[in-house]
Amino acid sequence: MNDTRQMIADMARRAKEASRQVANLSTSIKNEVLLKIADEIINGQEMLRAANQKDLVTARDKGLSSAFIDRLTLSDKVIESMAQGIRDVAALPDPVVEVPRMWKRPNGLTVGRVRIPLGVIGMIYESRPNVTIDAAGLCLKAGNAIILKGGSDAIHSNLALASMIQGVLKKFSVPVDAVQVIPTTDRSAVTELLKREEEIDLIIPRGGEGLIRFVVEHSSIPVLKHYKGVCHVYVDKWADLEMAKEICINSKVQRPGVCNAMEGMLVHEDVAKSFLPLVGEALRQAGVEIRGCNRTCSLLPYAIAASADDWGTEFLDLILAVKVVDGMQEAMDYIATYGSNHTEAIVTRDYARAMRFLSQVDASLVLVNASTRFNDGGQLGLGAEIGISTSKLHAYGPMGLNELTTTKFIAFGDGQIRT
Amino acid sequence: MNDTRQMIADMARRAKEASRQVANLSTSIKNEVLLKIADEIINGQEMLRAANQKDLVTARDKGLSSAFIDRLTLSDKVIESMAQGIRDVAALPDPVVEVPRMWKRPNGLTVGRVRIPLGVIGMIYESRPNVTIDAAGLCLKAGNAIILKGGSDAIHSNLALASMIQGVLKKFSVPVDAVQVIPTTDRSAVTELLKREEEIDLIIPRGGEGLIRFVVEHSSIPVLKHYKGVCHVYVDKWADLEMAKEICINSKVQRPGVCNAMEGMLVHEDVAKSFLPLVGEALRQAGVEIRGCNRTCSLLPYAIAASADDWGTEFLDLILAVKVVDGMQEAMDYIATYGSNHTEAIVTRDYARAMRFLSQVDASLVLVNASTRFNDGGQLGLGAEIGISTSKLHAYGPMGLNELTTTKFIAFGDGQIRT
Repeated sequence: MNDTRQMIADMARRAKEASRQVANLSTSIKNEVLLKIADEIINGQEMLRAANQKDLVTARDKGLSSAFIDRLTLSDKVIESMAQGIRDVAALPDPVVEVPRMWKRPNGLTVGRVRIPLGVIGMIYESRPNVTIDAAGLCLKAGNAIILKGGSDAIHSNLALASMIQGVLKKFSVPVDAVQVIPTTDRSAVTELLKREEEIDLIIPRGGEGLIRFVVEHSSIPVLKHYKGVCHVYVDKWADLEMAKEICINSKVQRPGVCNAMEGMLVHEDVAKSFLPLVGEALRQAGVEIRGCNRTCSLLPYAIAASADDWGTEFLDLILAVKVVDGMQEAMDYIATYGSNHTEAIVTRDYARAMRFLSQVDASLVLVNASTRFNDGGQLGLGAEIGISTSKLHAYGPMGLNELTTTKFIAFGDGQIRT
Repeated sequence: MNDTRQMIADMARRAKEASRQVANLSTSIKNEVLLKIADEIINGQEMLRAANQKDLVTARDKGLSSAFIDRLTLSDKVIESMAQGIRDVAALPDPVVEVPRMWKRPNGLTVGRVRIPLGVIGMIYESRPNVTIDAAGLCLKAGNAIILKGGSDAIHSNLALASMIQGVLKKFSVPVDAVQVIPTTDRSAVTELLKREEEIDLIIPRGGEGLIRFVVEHSSIPVLKHYKGVCHVYVDKWADLEMAKEICINSKVQRPGVCNAMEGMLVHEDVAKSFLPLVGEALRQAGVEIRGCNRTCSLLPYAIAASADDWGTEFLDLILAVKVVDGMQEAMDYIATYGSNHTEAIVTRDYARAMRFLSQVDASLVLVNASTRFNDGGQLGLGAEIGISTSKLHAYGPMGLNELTTTKFIAFGDGQIRT
């Protein structure tokens, strides 16, 4: 057994051992730990910044992009928001104190279903070190242990954050192995982690599609993930066109680099002539490049002809695919073909069409007359989230504290046996 | 692309297409379809038996065991129980008509969470052809399409059942691709199926540990499974010993070959002297071989010394591992080490110890003063089940109709955009 394999095996075993105790912590202890971590982030920011500086020097030496370095930097603002994020999690209700649902069987056996932590969560993510704090906070609050594997470029920052968290855990006599950061940049650590099915209950990868496909392919542990967000707005023939314009602009340009931004706009042919010039002009002013179907291009002189690859592409940029459709069925078929089960919206004033779209479109969030940008745990009212799932098992949509738990059955008997 | 790959790809695509329509069938249509299938099983039993006969001839030629041939046979009793099983599923409430939970956000957006079918389910199982009917019935009732890959030895029986079901679907104008049996015994069909992540939402394997490990290793689709059931009864120092005896006997001998049978018995040292001879005699009379720790062997002359391999083994037979423990903590540690997260029971009259065991033991069902044999969808009151999950994602414990569904978010807006 090589060193990395041995190290990951040990970390996984210790995490599982710790998870048994963390699962039984009281809500008040968990909250005190979280609030103390928030304080330590603020009080210990010199130490954090020093560690982060090491990562930044290496990143600059490697000539990494300024966008990358920006995401890597623990600025005043990022430090403040990490602390605030942890305080917000402390303020959320504890998901594992849910009152059990119970029922009685004809033989007198009382059966219940109670909410429990998942156990051990493995988190694999790329460069942002603040994910270390966000993920650790959510997992602890839900009563789980967590093993974190961040990007190589953030290793010093992540280890500094872990050591700070472990210092707090120690103070509260919580096992320090409840939050562990893998202290190596060896890529085989990831594949070893993905094999620890006996100890780890869930893997959450966050990052580009390549990372996520790698994790899904190599994991024998269940994975919660989304590959990409290819979100659409369908502007129906009965749409309020002013409203549709505002929704499309917001969905596309408010933050184009994120998974819930609109990547494709579908317009009913009956309103194409009036709507496309209206929204097209606004999109153009916002700097959006329009890649359109033939009918779109004939209405918008500044549109570029879309290639086959543009349909279903996650641009994560100020680029938009636009298609005129013959009707709502074509729009729904298009979404079924090119969508990514993330977020889909219709703009319409017609009740029956709104209802049909809501019930027939398969996506983690389907909206009527609102921006796709609302697919977010905070925006939907779930509190902080650890990611958005586009596969349907366990969680479909934003994963909040509840999605970091499961239920088990319990039964109270007085001697029942099966006949 | 080879033929099997092409065939599986086509089947998966057709299943996904069908699933969009099946998801929107009314409860009454689904129930009529199920009741008609039940009728056809009875009316068409000559045809079923003829197909089954082909499988039986091959199985006998191959010299397969009589237990195997027994499981493969569509006897009068099995046919009757398949029909009754489908009628029972028709009588269960439809899980996808659950009233949505809804809430309003400060910006006026009304957000809801509604229950929806999973989509397409792939079921991989071994020789029992009745699983074809059970699985198809549950999946249809929950609004899913299903692709079934049964054992090679049951191929004619399974294809006959599928063609019968498809005949009924056709009559009701439901897409026949909602229920498909893979018409080949080529093993590569399984690996191809496990790659169809774009079309299939869930894989459920049922069979031996080897099959299940193979599926988990090769699947990029989420898998719901249990590897094995290594269930324990812990007889506490405060146990009612008569009750403990009945529970242990029932857990072990009522049906020893199934996953919720007891495989290990843990006895508190304070009651070992009085309890072990009492239960030992009854176990012996029932033909159970006892493999005990040193203390057990010193109290029971007919016990065999356990080897290290006996702890945590799923015997599925009239064999029982027995260990005397110093206390409840040792019992719980033993269960954490050797248990399989399936079913664990305590027998005690002490309230605090019962509560501690219930909260600290990690298993899909934890019981106080009742037999492990109750871990079953029907016994717990969930209705029919499609299997028992021992991994914690999505379902932990028996999977009934509800576990064949998920939830999506919907949102009703009137022009909301994100600021």
